[in-house]
Amino acid sequence: MVRIAVAGASGYAGGEILRLLLAHPEVEIGTLTAGGNAGSRLGEHQPHLLPLADRVLAESTAEELAGHDVVFLALPHGRSAEIAAQLPADTVVIDCGADHRLADAAAWERWYGGEYAGNWPYGLPELPGAREKLRGATRIAVPGCYPTIASLALAPALAAGLVETEVVVTAVSGTSGAGKTPKPHLLGAEVMGALSAYGVGGVHRHTPEMVQNLSAAAGRPVSVSFTPVLAPLPRGILATCSARTTASAAEVQDAYAKAYADEPFVHVLPEGVWPTTAATLGANTALLQVTVDPDAGRMIAVGAIDNLTKGTAGAAVQCMNLAVGLPETTGLPVTGVAP
Amino acid sequence: MVRIAVAGASGYAGGEILRLLLAHPEVEIGTLTAGGNAGSRLGEHQPHLLPLADRVLAESTAEELAGHDVVFLALPHGRSAEIAAQLPADTVVIDCGADHRLADAAAWERWYGGEYAGNWPYGLPELPGAREKLRGATRIAVPGCYPTIASLALAPALAAGLVETEVVVTAVSGTSGAGKTPKPHLLGAEVMGALSAYGVGGVHRHTPEMVQNLSAAAGRPVSVSFTPVLAPLPRGILATCSARTTASAAEVQDAYAKAYADEPFVHVLPEGVWPTTAATLGANTALLQVTVDPDAGRMIAVGAIDNLTKGTAGAAVQCMNLAVGLPETTGLPVTGVAP
Amino acid sequence: MVRIAVAGASGYAGGEILRLLLAHPEVEIGTLTAGGNAGSRLGEHQPHLLPLADRVLAESTAEELAGHDVVFLALPHGRSAEIAAQLPADTVVIDCGADHRLADAAAWERWYGGEYAGNWPYGLPELPGAREKLRGATRIAVPGCYPTIASLALAPALAAGLVETEVVVTAVSGTSGAGKTPKPHLLGAEVMGALSAYGVGGVHRHTPEMVQNLSAAAGRPVSVSFTPVLAPLPRGILATCSARTTASAAEVQDAYAKAYADEPFVHVLPEGVWPTTAATLGANTALLQVTVDPDAGRMIAVGAIDNLTKGTAGAAVQCMNLAVGLPETTGLPVTGVAP
Amino acid sequence: MVRIAVAGASGYAGGEILRLLLAHPEVEIGTLTAGGNAGSRLGEHQPHLLPLADRVLAESTAEELAGHDVVFLALPHGRSAEIAAQLPADTVVIDCGADHRLADAAAWERWYGGEYAGNWPYGLPELPGAREKLRGATRIAVPGCYPTIASLALAPALAAGLVETEVVVTAVSGTSGAGKTPKPHLLGAEVMGALSAYGVGGVHRHTPEMVQNLSAAAGRPVSVSFTPVLAPLPRGILATCSARTTASAAEVQDAYAKAYADEPFVHVLPEGVWPTTAATLGANTALLQVTVDPDAGRMIAVGAIDNLTKGTAGAAVQCMNLAVGLPETTGLPVTGVAP
Repeated sequence: MVRIAVAGASGYAGGEILRLLLAHPEVEIGTLTAGGNAGSRLGEHQPHLLPLADRVLAESTAEELAGHDVVFLALPHGRSAEIAAQLPADTVVIDCGADHRLADAAAWERWYGGEYAGNWPYGLPELPGAREKLRGATRIAVPGCYPTIASLALAPALAAGLVETEVVVTAVSGTSGAGKTPKPHLLGAEVMGALSAYGVGGVHRHTPEMVQNLSAAAGRPVSVSFTPVLAPLPRGILATCSARTTASAAEVQDAYAKAYADEPFVHVLPEGVWPTTAATLGANTALLQVTVDPDAGRMIAVGAIDNLTKGTAGAAVQCMNLAVGLPETTGLPVTGVAP
Repeated sequence: MVRIAVAGASGYAGGEILRLLLAHPEVEIGTLTAGGNAGSRLGEHQPHLLPLADRVLAESTAEELAGHDVVFLALPHGRSAEIAAQLPADTVVIDCGADHRLADAAAWERWYGGEYAGNWPYGLPELPGAREKLRGATRIAVPGCYPTIASLALAPALAAGLVETEVVVTAVSGTSGAGKTPKPHLLGAEVMGALSAYGVGGVHRHTPEMVQNLSAAAGRPVSVSFTPVLAPLPRGILATCSARTTASAAEVQDAYAKAYADEPFVHVLPEGVWPTTAATLGANTALLQVTVDPDAGRMIAVGAIDNLTKGTAGAAVQCMNLAVGLPETTGLPVTGVAP
Repeated sequence: MVRIAVAGASGYAGGEILRLLLAHPEVEIGTLTAGGNAGSRLGEHQPHLLPLADRVLAESTAEELAGHDVVFLALPHGRSAEIAAQLPADTVVIDCGADHRLADAAAWERWYGGEYAGNWPYGLPELPGAREKLRGATRIAVPGCYPTIASLALAPALAAGLVETEVVVTAVSGTSGAGKTPKPHLLGAEVMGALSAYGVGGVHRHTPEMVQNLSAAAGRPVSVSFTPVLAPLPRGILATCSARTTASAAEVQDAYAKAYADEPFVHVLPEGVWPTTAATLGANTALLQVTVDPDAGRMIAVGAIDNLTKGTAGAAVQCMNLAVGLPETTGLPVTGVAP
Repeated sequence: MVRIAVAGASGYAGGEILRLLLAHPEVEIGTLTAGGNAGSRLGEHQPHLLPLADRVLAESTAEELAGHDVVFLALPHGRSAEIAAQLPADTVVIDCGADHRLADAAAWERWYGGEYAGNWPYGLPELPGAREKLRGATRIAVPGCYPTIASLALAPALAAGLVETEVVVTAVSGTSGAGKTPKPHLLGAEVMGALSAYGVGGVHRHTPEMVQNLSAAAGRPVSVSFTPVLAPLPRGILATCSARTTASAAEVQDAYAKAYADEPFVHVLPEGVWPTTAATLGANTALLQVTVDPDAGRMIAVGAIDNLTKGTAGAAVQCMNLAVGLPETTGLPVTGVAP
């Protein structure tokens, strides 16, 4: 059994990690920690995690987290680096925050401020070359939710040289992506019935992560125009991604079919079927479809994930499986909860 | 008093026209008609229209609709032309369907099939040159909901030559835009919790309407890559629109401020404030904001409307006001119902 | 023109009062105040109130509120009494809070704590004897949202002696009723997809207000078992109310038809049609239906309102109309925004 | 391995059975059938069931369903009896419809019409005496969703003689309970933002099932006043149930704690914590809390389930486990998907 700890267990990412691990056959759930909620019962914050309801949350310190095989860090940005540095080198540390995602120190400092903490193996195994670095790794950076689906949706076309390198991404997201800290604009009465754009004009922090992934896939610099939109649902991201192309629909569909033929969690849908986030709820699944608009001269790729599962916690568990040598799909649901 | 009739009164567009006209001080509501619902009481279909609950729906024929100053047609595409042809030339006929929106007969036949019915003055008064053609008009084509907000969001930049002519539009919509005919994928259990793209790859019928409007604004051909997304709310469209630019944010913001300075229903928001559909619910209001992403070299314009109000019925009443010589804003709400 | 001020203009009740008053033909909107939001622009908090977007919020003090014909207080419970005491006796003060709703000082102190501030005319004109006390009144207590619909739904049967005096009320509400102060359990991600009971077992503060109203209607003590339920929509309350009866459905329906025959805002629906909150969105309308279950020996009355309109702000404006001598329906919408 | 077939695989109940069985370690999924959708791929109707996407649906006939260890019937009411009669006596037939739920032939004919098909062991193992009849059974009637939660919420108090026998149940439900057949009032645009009562006055068909279960628990006739309410969420039922009592809160809480102490799927929450449907999404879990309102003299019990899981498909799988001799909890999730 793999003994695990979760830091940030009272938040959305931490809760989803625990939901998945409760169904994981090879895991034993150890210490759970929190920030302001330390000292309280998990059941107060995560009423759905019934088997863990009476667990008392410890403080999020390296001392509390030590002594586990795997430590999941589901902490606010900028909080992971310090704790990780104090954990033993042979403990598998899986960071769901942004601290170790970017390879470019200058980019990190421009977008996040503060001191750059370094770059860890990037936890999107479906990207070219990524899976090998994750096998047996002891430090893993889980991708952001938007970069996960944008990268999956665009990488095959860029890698195959089928599209130009200026891409446009509009991604619509449920509100759990904004976290559990209460703010007026995230109140239910505000978000139900509302669609709103935010972080417009290239200022969202997930932009450089997309640039990094897509440039690597293309083998040359890619520019990303990214607009996130908030929509009234708890979970789910639907990304519409496009780029100029002279290829045919059949050519791009063929490239996607080949790129993901052996992937257990990425499904290129049958021709004419377009992704819906509803089919991914609670599953570690990405759904993709792609076509070409010959009038506009653009390829359009659409991808759907659950931002908390494949977009965060499912990816984290998938990475854990790779890190500790379990089959990659262990304990991870493929079928969403629908309707 | 202007005496009006509404064909298609049991549908969403017809219901919204009646909701607005019930609050309009210069209108008397005459005959209401329907297709399959003819013979039933309006209250069975529109429980919110209490003052008209006992009205019995007549058949949607020219005979029933004759004898009014203004006839609103809220009928399925392809049904308006025949009825309109039988109404007197001096009756103001306002078509909420697509039959008379396109100036290009070949485009109409490509996208809608069947015989082209001709082109009427286009009911988006805020487009350059449009208002003049609507004053005193007796035949008016109300725009589609997506073309309304995409055109308002992109026309000023194209007219000022600030952006290139290949534009990308991703527009997220509430489900009332899909109409009231029951289909499995529109069931509440299906759409709540779901984001899904449809009509991807330039195949949505609103695409040629955007091309027409934006090409006119630019004074040269514009290509439009349009992706509609369905989201779980009854009403509202949020459009994110972008195009390559070398202009600065200040330049484009200035162009939008000037373009809409005197428009009562189009609001360019203060710098840093981005539109939300929630603020437009039930109002004939379009909210806009625009910026430039210098890294990506693109202008991004975001617009929000209520698809049933400014996107359909509000535009229809605004056009009626122009057609019959009333002040353009008569009876039209500017403030949305929020939260 | 009636010159008005609103204290608490950045909250939900204050915002709805302003939305209604912007469409009121006899009102001039004066000072707007807030607590923690004083000093900021209204547009930051109420993006839908476009005509007032640039108004700067003053402090909620009697000095700022003085000099108006009517002052609306939309403040947290316990804050109204002090301000009201400092306003001139001939200023019409309309309190949307709970400070002046209960006639029984002991009940007030039991349920709200603190010092009893006294009892003002109760702003539910449709209750027997209420309207007369509101005409020309200078101090008015607007009812709570749940008591509004529970009282309307049960008073006729109790007044006619058709039911026993132990009543059961389960009322489902949208989340705007919980206010705009951000709390974790009110986050969009929490409330969407969730139904939850709260204040169960007679501990909700609206219980004594129902007891007061229904006992007055019955002419003898009534007990109320009240359970509120939170549901995923911004606005709307649906109350299901029942009591033992030996009367027939026809008898109770007749009593309701008579009780509300002349009421402009209370609609007893045609037989077999049951209320939906959707038809009341943004309207000052209450929808009612009633029947008898002979197997269970109970009358069931169901009522629907918009908690922010007829449940709060619409009632406040209706009361203002009565207080200042305007026609009671002036400026108040009857048709909801649907779908 | 238990070889199973599902009739009605394209509907909501059938889809949920398959979702659960895909995660069940002892099951092999055989024939899938449908009515009007026979001949099409399952993936067209259930996009979340990715591993079964290419399965072609057979006709719902006894011939197609024969040859399996267990047959799940998820068919419209009145369709199960005929098919079941043609299946071998040693095949386990689990009927999710209403055909075999009522022991009283006259009640069945009053509420459902047509010919009474007989009474099968009732699939709510947590009711007194129920589990024994399900072990090794070859015919099982799965309860209705509302009776499931109302029975769980009221049986302990009635069995212990702590409350009077006239009970009042108001149960709020998500819209998947209404099924997948498209009807105008179930459209997303209609149900989002709407709360509506239906089947009011004791006319809902689940009423006699509650009467049957609760009378059995009480050991004497119980009357049930049942009002169902539709709310805007896909899944979930929250039932508020009450009855007159002279007992104390501690007495009733103690009775519930004892009644469900050993039940793996029924959780009586800690004092002061009230159920939310969000915690049960996709789980075979019922959450309960109970208190007494001494002013009103009533006990109030509140229960939450997912109508498609513990309310239908989860119960069906739980019954299958009992019927075929597997541990009762095999393959059934306890933790919901939240937020």
